[in-house]
Amino acid sequence: MSASASGEALQFDLIVLGGGSGGLAAAFRAAEHGQRVALLEPGALGGTCVNVGCVPKKAMWMAAELGARIAQAGQLGFDVPGAGRVAFDWSRFITDRQRYIHGIHDSYRTRLDRDGIVVLPVRGRLAGPHQVECEDGTRLGAPHIVLATGSSPQRPPVTGAGLGAVSDDFFAWSSAPHRVAIIGGGYIAIEFAGVLQALGSQVDMYIRDQRLLRQADVELVEQLQENYTQQGIHLHFGYDLEAVRRAGAGLQLQAIDGSTRGGYDEVMFATGRRPNTGGIGLESVGITPDAAGNIPVDAWQATPSPGLYAVGDICGCGPALTPVAIAAARRLCDRLFGGRPDARLDAGNVPSVVFAHPPLATVGLTELEARARYGDDVHICRSRFRPMREALAGSPQRSLFKLVCMGAERRVVGIHLLGDAADEILQGFAVALKLGATLDDFHDTIAIHPTSAEEIVLMR
Amino acid sequence: MSASASGEALQFDLIVLGGGSGGLAAAFRAAEHGQRVALLEPGALGGTCVNVGCVPKKAMWMAAELGARIAQAGQLGFDVPGAGRVAFDWSRFITDRQRYIHGIHDSYRTRLDRDGIVVLPVRGRLAGPHQVECEDGTRLGAPHIVLATGSSPQRPPVTGAGLGAVSDDFFAWSSAPHRVAIIGGGYIAIEFAGVLQALGSQVDMYIRDQRLLRQADVELVEQLQENYTQQGIHLHFGYDLEAVRRAGAGLQLQAIDGSTRGGYDEVMFATGRRPNTGGIGLESVGITPDAAGNIPVDAWQATPSPGLYAVGDICGCGPALTPVAIAAARRLCDRLFGGRPDARLDAGNVPSVVFAHPPLATVGLTELEARARYGDDVHICRSRFRPMREALAGSPQRSLFKLVCMGAERRVVGIHLLGDAADEILQGFAVALKLGATLDDFHDTIAIHPTSAEEIVLMR
Repeated sequence: MSASASGEALQFDLIVLGGGSGGLAAAFRAAEHGQRVALLEPGALGGTCVNVGCVPKKAMWMAAELGARIAQAGQLGFDVPGAGRVAFDWSRFITDRQRYIHGIHDSYRTRLDRDGIVVLPVRGRLAGPHQVECEDGTRLGAPHIVLATGSSPQRPPVTGAGLGAVSDDFFAWSSAPHRVAIIGGGYIAIEFAGVLQALGSQVDMYIRDQRLLRQADVELVEQLQENYTQQGIHLHFGYDLEAVRRAGAGLQLQAIDGSTRGGYDEVMFATGRRPNTGGIGLESVGITPDAAGNIPVDAWQATPSPGLYAVGDICGCGPALTPVAIAAARRLCDRLFGGRPDARLDAGNVPSVVFAHPPLATVGLTELEARARYGDDVHICRSRFRPMREALAGSPQRSLFKLVCMGAERRVVGIHLLGDAADEILQGFAVALKLGATLDDFHDTIAIHPTSAEEIVLMR
Repeated sequence: MSASASGEALQFDLIVLGGGSGGLAAAFRAAEHGQRVALLEPGALGGTCVNVGCVPKKAMWMAAELGARIAQAGQLGFDVPGAGRVAFDWSRFITDRQRYIHGIHDSYRTRLDRDGIVVLPVRGRLAGPHQVECEDGTRLGAPHIVLATGSSPQRPPVTGAGLGAVSDDFFAWSSAPHRVAIIGGGYIAIEFAGVLQALGSQVDMYIRDQRLLRQADVELVEQLQENYTQQGIHLHFGYDLEAVRRAGAGLQLQAIDGSTRGGYDEVMFATGRRPNTGGIGLESVGITPDAAGNIPVDAWQATPSPGLYAVGDICGCGPALTPVAIAAARRLCDRLFGGRPDARLDAGNVPSVVFAHPPLATVGLTELEARARYGDDVHICRSRFRPMREALAGSPQRSLFKLVCMGAERRVVGIHLLGDAADEILQGFAVALKLGATLDDFHDTIAIHPTSAEEIVLMR
């Protein structure tokens, strides 16, 4: 770092601000292409996904699913306590979960070292084109800079918002709160509600809309809402929150109509996230985030400032999902350093899963979107069935799978799955959809029996 | 039936011998096309699959998986007994399983009635071209006859073979035998071994070859063998059985080298199946089964006798799988009655799953097959990883996913998955493979994180 001490900037081929999934992917891919890379991350490697997002969320979801399976096992001949009566040591599980996450940190660290990537555990800010200044005064320069500082959960502007938790806080909890109010009806609200209810909380969801998951297929959402109600979650639609207050030993919600609901041990806001664009020196390159806080980029991840790119949640191109950030980062580096001038993110037909109970998986157009686009030229297939396990256990829970097809050739333009294993089933069908598969292509593939997945190639 | 009493044959458009999956599929599809159908089935509807195959097998597999999950849950913070110490009420589970199967029978019955299919609960035999004679003397005639009488498990020609059970017997057991010897290394042997070991038996497998699953990918089989050994199953390779004997309170095996191993409560043969071609009057139409017992058919399911067809296990076209029989039957009826003269079974790239623990799923060419066909023009991708649940529980069990690609464009010609959820993951990828997907097509599909399935689109 002697160059820096003398005031001269340390030169790299690429500087990455942010060590989350997107930033790491950019750094690794650039290094693969032989570039000298500096990565600045003042916090934990892996960003939201690894530390307070996908990974710990999936772990909690798995615990919740396992709890539900154990409870159901009493109906299947196993000598275990029934629903809600299997004790779960939340804090022990969290110890294991965090050990798993530390393992991911270690593997990143090993790979960063191996690839010769310079990791600076400090905050950095742009100091003009091709320039970054670290908070310790170190100056770095590079022809290419990638912004990948991610996003953070936001509390809504209501009185007492500070009394509520956000998703980041959830992951620090060491037990299930007795009563929880979750504000929001998007995928984060749904995932936390399912986990908490399954692991012992009484969950009330407060949703501004008249339904969960505004953009998802209506029928699947109705089925999911029915499942959640069966699981004991209370859904309050059309709810406009005005304030959160302490009342007695608990927290109380007040709606704009003046009504109150209280007795909550925790209130959790799942009301959206906002890009982390503060303090990174955007003004030094003349960039202003849009109203939603996103950094403007073109289809090639390029900002208006030469040599400056953004990937992931900070730029709002494509859904705010880890694999989207990773794909964007890899393609950007393939384009810049890998001799693939056409490489760029294709943000169409991105498959995604809501880790609800059961999971909801979706790719492509919903029925509504397809009808808006193609009118009557839309053919819908649906299969509502009870998976074998549910049937054996006498559980009413049903899966609902739905295909949205278009045109005389019935090209599959949307796949919507709510049901056990939907999270694992979708990936291969997403490949097929992207390849332009028709319903005949589905039918021409022999079914795998007995599975849930076979329903998809048998629907007519 | 007055026509019959007078000696005249009752006329139908189609007669189906056998009410298993293939026979039912033929009957249903022909009825959909407006045909008058007679279905002859002296036993339970649904054949092997529903009664003594796929369905009860999958139910037992699910119980075994659930038992393993419960045992593992103690490692994940749940207050349940550990490995091998959760009591399982086998006979209660079987009651539920059989109720589930009766539900399937009922749904067949309802649909057969609704579709106006005449079901005769009797044995029938061909009485010349276009003629069937029932065991009660009724005579039926039709321009088209489909043979779909399935296959049965075979005992090998060794001394005392009658002392051993076959898969049909397994489904009548009401508890896990203490010690079991399973003879065979194919998928049926593997499935029963896994279930029995998980539900409390001590399982020894005796395999003539030096490996399990002769035709499957070598690496996956090695990993599966390692997993089975970890689960406590003893694998004896290169074993040639000569005799089964009673010895004391148990059963004893004697190998051709004279060595003996005893103390078994049950010996189970999983040594192959043979088409049910006896007593169906093949001689009346001049058809002789081949050495393996299969009825000869062409690519259109047609036997050498005009108007006589065969589908499913009885004709050995394609793997002996329920969905293959169903697909063949449907296409045959679409061709005969549905105005689709080109409809026929495509028995290439049939995906299949061995319900082992974890499941093994495969479609297309193995590495060995691909190298034999394409030489050096083969590219292999593999990913060996510990799924999150196994990692969290500190279990050593690893998944192994493998892609076999061909040519400069790296077309995916084989997919081989061993791991949790492989049974559900494969179906969509089988569609993609059939569509000619390349490795680039896989990479261009955004991953679903965190899942096991995403490994497949991320492998390089």
